[in-house]
Amino acid sequence: MAECASAFHVPEASLRAQIGAVLGAWGFGPDAVAAGTDGLAYADLRGIHSHGIAMLPIYERWRSEGRFVAGATPSVVKENAVSALIDGGSGLGFLPATVAMRLAIAKAMTAGVSAVSVRRSNHFGAAGHYAVMAAQDGLIGLALSNTVAPAIVPTGGREARFGTNPIAFAAPAARSEPFVLDMATSTVALGKLMMAAYRDETIPLGWALDATGRPTTDATAGYASRLATPLGALPELSSHKGSGLAAMVEILSAVVSGATPAMDTTPGQPGDVGHFFLALDPAIFRCRDEYGAALDRLMEKVRATEPAEPGLPVQVAGDPEREALRHSRTGGICLPAALIRELEPLVARAGCEWHLPDHSGDPRHQGIS
Amino acid sequence: MAECASAFHVPEASLRAQIGAVLGAWGFGPDAVAAGTDGLAYADLRGIHSHGIAMLPIYERWRSEGRFVAGATPSVVKENAVSALIDGGSGLGFLPATVAMRLAIAKAMTAGVSAVSVRRSNHFGAAGHYAVMAAQDGLIGLALSNTVAPAIVPTGGREARFGTNPIAFAAPAARSEPFVLDMATSTVALGKLMMAAYRDETIPLGWALDATGRPTTDATAGYASRLATPLGALPELSSHKGSGLAAMVEILSAVVSGATPAMDTTPGQPGDVGHFFLALDPAIFRCRDEYGAALDRLMEKVRATEPAEPGLPVQVAGDPEREALRHSRTGGICLPAALIRELEPLVARAGCEWHLPDHSGDPRHQGIS
Repeated sequence: MAECASAFHVPEASLRAQIGAVLGAWGFGPDAVAAGTDGLAYADLRGIHSHGIAMLPIYERWRSEGRFVAGATPSVVKENAVSALIDGGSGLGFLPATVAMRLAIAKAMTAGVSAVSVRRSNHFGAAGHYAVMAAQDGLIGLALSNTVAPAIVPTGGREARFGTNPIAFAAPAARSEPFVLDMATSTVALGKLMMAAYRDETIPLGWALDATGRPTTDATAGYASRLATPLGALPELSSHKGSGLAAMVEILSAVVSGATPAMDTTPGQPGDVGHFFLALDPAIFRCRDEYGAALDRLMEKVRATEPAEPGLPVQVAGDPEREALRHSRTGGICLPAALIRELEPLVARAGCEWHLPDHSGDPRHQGIS
Repeated sequence: MAECASAFHVPEASLRAQIGAVLGAWGFGPDAVAAGTDGLAYADLRGIHSHGIAMLPIYERWRSEGRFVAGATPSVVKENAVSALIDGGSGLGFLPATVAMRLAIAKAMTAGVSAVSVRRSNHFGAAGHYAVMAAQDGLIGLALSNTVAPAIVPTGGREARFGTNPIAFAAPAARSEPFVLDMATSTVALGKLMMAAYRDETIPLGWALDATGRPTTDATAGYASRLATPLGALPELSSHKGSGLAAMVEILSAVVSGATPAMDTTPGQPGDVGHFFLALDPAIFRCRDEYGAALDRLMEKVRATEPAEPGLPVQVAGDPEREALRHSRTGGICLPAALIRELEPLVARAGCEWHLPDHSGDPRHQGIS
């Protein structure tokens, strides 16, 4: 794990203990703490560090801005046999999102298909976490969310209008692990722009726009503007399609549920993010075994595609995260030393115990690796 | 309409008469002819000419290859209150697709949400046609399909694995016309590559790969290889996301229904394309009027985004097609003279009447314009 040279290998239990301690100290109830710990650990275990414990500094800021109602309990506003609308009460987003996906799963197991939408929520972590819940129960799952602030500029514009609006889709196979797509509808995450700006790197044309709305290769200009491009990157590469997908997610997450579209969010207001969850039992269409075997074959054939670069096999959505998960489970979760250093004063401010490695020495000699 | 200089303006009635005459002469039953005429005219009316009457020469070839069973009647294989599996009997794809979406709409109107999948179908035209059916009935609609041959190369590969696998999503608004996203999950359609190759043009890097799996700017090499890139175009612009979306559509269309994945299709076999339709009543979540007004506002704000180029306003998905529809309804459907010339011997072979303009003279002096 060469990428871990200035990083720590943190055991999963320590990571979970730290997340739980902070969320608990911030006054979130036990259910929210459990859901938040599961959700953030899901991401760090799979190498999606932008959606793991690194969110705590952002949550601390949102907390100070009044985005979170600490003791909120999600409530079902409206419900029928195949659908529900859940009000998250502006609590930690992980709880209403988890409740919603579990409800969608239960309904789909009885009826075959179900849709649950959520309003008055907050950031719910990696969307894949919820889609995977369905796949673990033998169902196809879809999880969408809008966000607290616009970042994606619709094709032809110079103002952000949509959140980075993720689409996660998971489908269970028979022998193989599930197909798991988890993607923002922007070309790249804002975190990738931030890292490139820190390193003063040149970025590929199409990652971001400068303040005038022109594509830029200057990471600093692209990150400063916070004008992310939709998937497709440039008009001549069909960025209008990514723009349309981002709008679709905004509609299903916010318009359908009554949440606030990212472009209408007022800073300092209690969270009103919207999510959308769909669960589908493949057995309503064909025998479960046949379906699972067909998905096994599809994924095997994609992995067996002749590669453009010999020795670099083609991957199926979910493969990189599964590889990271295997590494995390055997060698601990690889967290940058800079992140560990940023978390220490945050943990102190929360007034709770420190569960992460001591970062005062050389990080390469720390942790469990 | 400067783009119509070497083209004809064809009245909708003439276009429909010609499509219907050919499909009928080929032995398709009245329901299939009606569905096919509606579906192909939908596309031509909206300027999506790659999915309109220009499909007839391709259908003629597929017909000679045994892809179509002319007298096929779609049958419901499996059904519950919120779902159905339809067998298209390898007939014209428009009929099972129309039957499936109408069934999804009827079920969603009662239950709130529904999913209908189709196997043993063929090309169903523009996916948006089916999503729009739901929106016209006040529902949110999703329409997906795989295709008869692979075209999209998964990121890192040099072999096509997925069809151009479209995603169409339509959502009805209150005062405005619906939001209509209709996109292939490839960067561009094969038809765009073909046109660039005809014109010997340079294409943007990322539209297609050459035979070695490398991105090329040579339209002829890119069209000859038939190796299309997924949305995102290049690995550094996140083409793995488009690759994942194409796989998701392949799973929902073919794996779920039991149809044949594009990469497993055997030439000369009766059609076994798969489709997936979802219908969702927004009223299961919130008051229909509030939902519709929120979507009106969202679309208005997107259109009001400050443009990157002054005077070139930002469009919402569906706007270009609506503009083309207005032109078509007032001035006729603009069809290239070359297409009209290609259709004449086809119509003669089918042994039916000619309903399109006489193309022997100067096309600029023909038609109704």
